[in-house]
Amino acid sequence: MNIGLDMMGGDFAPLEAVKGINLLREANPGKADAQPNLTLFGDEAQIAALLVEQRVDMNGIKIVHTTQIIDMHEHPTKAFREKQDSSIAVGFGYLAKGLTDAFISAGNTGAMMVGSLFSIKAIEGIHRPTIGAYMPRENGQLGCLLDVGINSDCKPENLVQFALLGSIFAEQVLNIPNPKVGLINIGEEEGKGNLLAQAAYPLLKEAEGINFIGNIEGRDIFLDKSDVMICDGFTGNIILKLAESIHGLTQRRNVHDEFFDMFEFEQYGGVPVLGVNKPVIIGHGISHAKAFKNMISIAQKMIEKDVIGMIKARV
Amino acid sequence: MNIGLDMMGGDFAPLEAVKGINLLREANPGKADAQPNLTLFGDEAQIAALLVEQRVDMNGIKIVHTTQIIDMHEHPTKAFREKQDSSIAVGFGYLAKGLTDAFISAGNTGAMMVGSLFSIKAIEGIHRPTIGAYMPRENGQLGCLLDVGINSDCKPENLVQFALLGSIFAEQVLNIPNPKVGLINIGEEEGKGNLLAQAAYPLLKEAEGINFIGNIEGRDIFLDKSDVMICDGFTGNIILKLAESIHGLTQRRNVHDEFFDMFEFEQYGGVPVLGVNKPVIIGHGISHAKAFKNMISIAQKMIEKDVIGMIKARV
Repeated sequence: MNIGLDMMGGDFAPLEAVKGINLLREANPGKADAQPNLTLFGDEAQIAALLVEQRVDMNGIKIVHTTQIIDMHEHPTKAFREKQDSSIAVGFGYLAKGLTDAFISAGNTGAMMVGSLFSIKAIEGIHRPTIGAYMPRENGQLGCLLDVGINSDCKPENLVQFALLGSIFAEQVLNIPNPKVGLINIGEEEGKGNLLAQAAYPLLKEAEGINFIGNIEGRDIFLDKSDVMICDGFTGNIILKLAESIHGLTQRRNVHDEFFDMFEFEQYGGVPVLGVNKPVIIGHGISHAKAFKNMISIAQKMIEKDVIGMIKARV
Repeated sequence: MNIGLDMMGGDFAPLEAVKGINLLREANPGKADAQPNLTLFGDEAQIAALLVEQRVDMNGIKIVHTTQIIDMHEHPTKAFREKQDSSIAVGFGYLAKGLTDAFISAGNTGAMMVGSLFSIKAIEGIHRPTIGAYMPRENGQLGCLLDVGINSDCKPENLVQFALLGSIFAEQVLNIPNPKVGLINIGEEEGKGNLLAQAAYPLLKEAEGINFIGNIEGRDIFLDKSDVMICDGFTGNIILKLAESIHGLTQRRNVHDEFFDMFEFEQYGGVPVLGVNKPVIIGHGISHAKAFKNMISIAQKMIEKDVIGMIKARV
């Protein structure tokens, strides 16, 4: 297994990425064989110096030197096309050629999506690949919410595919057996909602391979009423960013509580792009070491469990 | 000034409505003349007994006996048409005839909207009357969010009118001078968002009489970045119900904090239907005495400041 890691993406790269590699290895001492090999994309001199400084065991680690960086605020398509020697573009090149089995970055989300769609492409039958987010819930277990912003205008059929993709993710990565799927809506009964939700409900009810439990409302999002919460990317992005803001609020108000600590989203690492042909993990721009460590673990899990194969089989 | 009050609406009516009247009068002792006259709609025997039991000063209070109740889960249009002697239908009849100056209910929200649109009608030029909600903010001052569910699918022009209606409400009722209007969106820059938000932005930028500050994101909702937060009713309803759920979470987690206490929405009373020809206030089904008291105060404020006249002048 060989996992590609963009060392130049994120506000605290490459140092925190290097620290994340160390965290992962420290978490599995003496199991060098169980560690995935890592291919690191970025400025070789800078990365090599940090690897030495942080005393990273170089066994199974290879650096691929790249000369360009796609910044957080660059136009994704333009930057991806023009910066062919960027860590993201080269990373996707390796993934597309099968030189790596997954690719991870905490860099420009749009460029990561462009790379996913252009280099490794959507799985046949998937109309709109999606990104989900972890959602803290009162029972202490994470749920997932999707889409969270890639697809701001959706068709009803897109929501059905999000439900399937989210269910496989929840089952395989979040370890929730037979995850409950809820349609985010503004009323409990079928027939409620905007045109999209009204049209999606009957499709979800008939869809095979998902455990659809009906509508859920805003007040149910932090409860365990459903494990996979489905909506268009506009709604999902607003919910996610609102949820993310709660951590700062509790910190500033000096509120300390196990449940509210779950709103520190940085601890979860990144989320996979679901519906493309290889595991791609996108991290938050503010990712620190723990997030990088977790992203590598998620990629490893997705490869080990053949999540992509499962999605292909069930589309 | 004569304010109509549905005594049969809400989970704890009529007792909590009666207690609310008492709270209001106790809050203004010795100012009997400054109190609005009240017209109470509902079962006369039941209300009269409670007024005696709660020792309410009957000065300026009149009961109008009604024999029917529109339940919380009845179909609004059907119930409003068929139950012509319900407290809501009779209450709107009085309002339409000018026998009262405002109407308040914590009952069936849909029936209250139907009553507003059919009995007293939208202000000329207003395409879609709306309901807003108070939004707690970290600075301790309430903002407002609209629409929160009446108009689940919107056109860009609707959002511009929500901005105007919300601005007048924020200025006159929330006492925020020159309130900042933010378009709820999934990115900061113009051009971001779903089709609705993309189309609404330039209209809001050009709109006169509002202080449009641009896009706000999910993370800005509990901050003071904007005072009037505008979105379609689907998005707004989900934000509102999510925000409402935070109070229960803090209670169950035993979190006590001044800011998080603001999420106890019941304390705010109801919200006005904005864009119709008379003041109509709709309360939460779980309204207790304090909410009823606050609803009467909001109605009084709207009458005293001639909020309806202001809206008419500025459409």
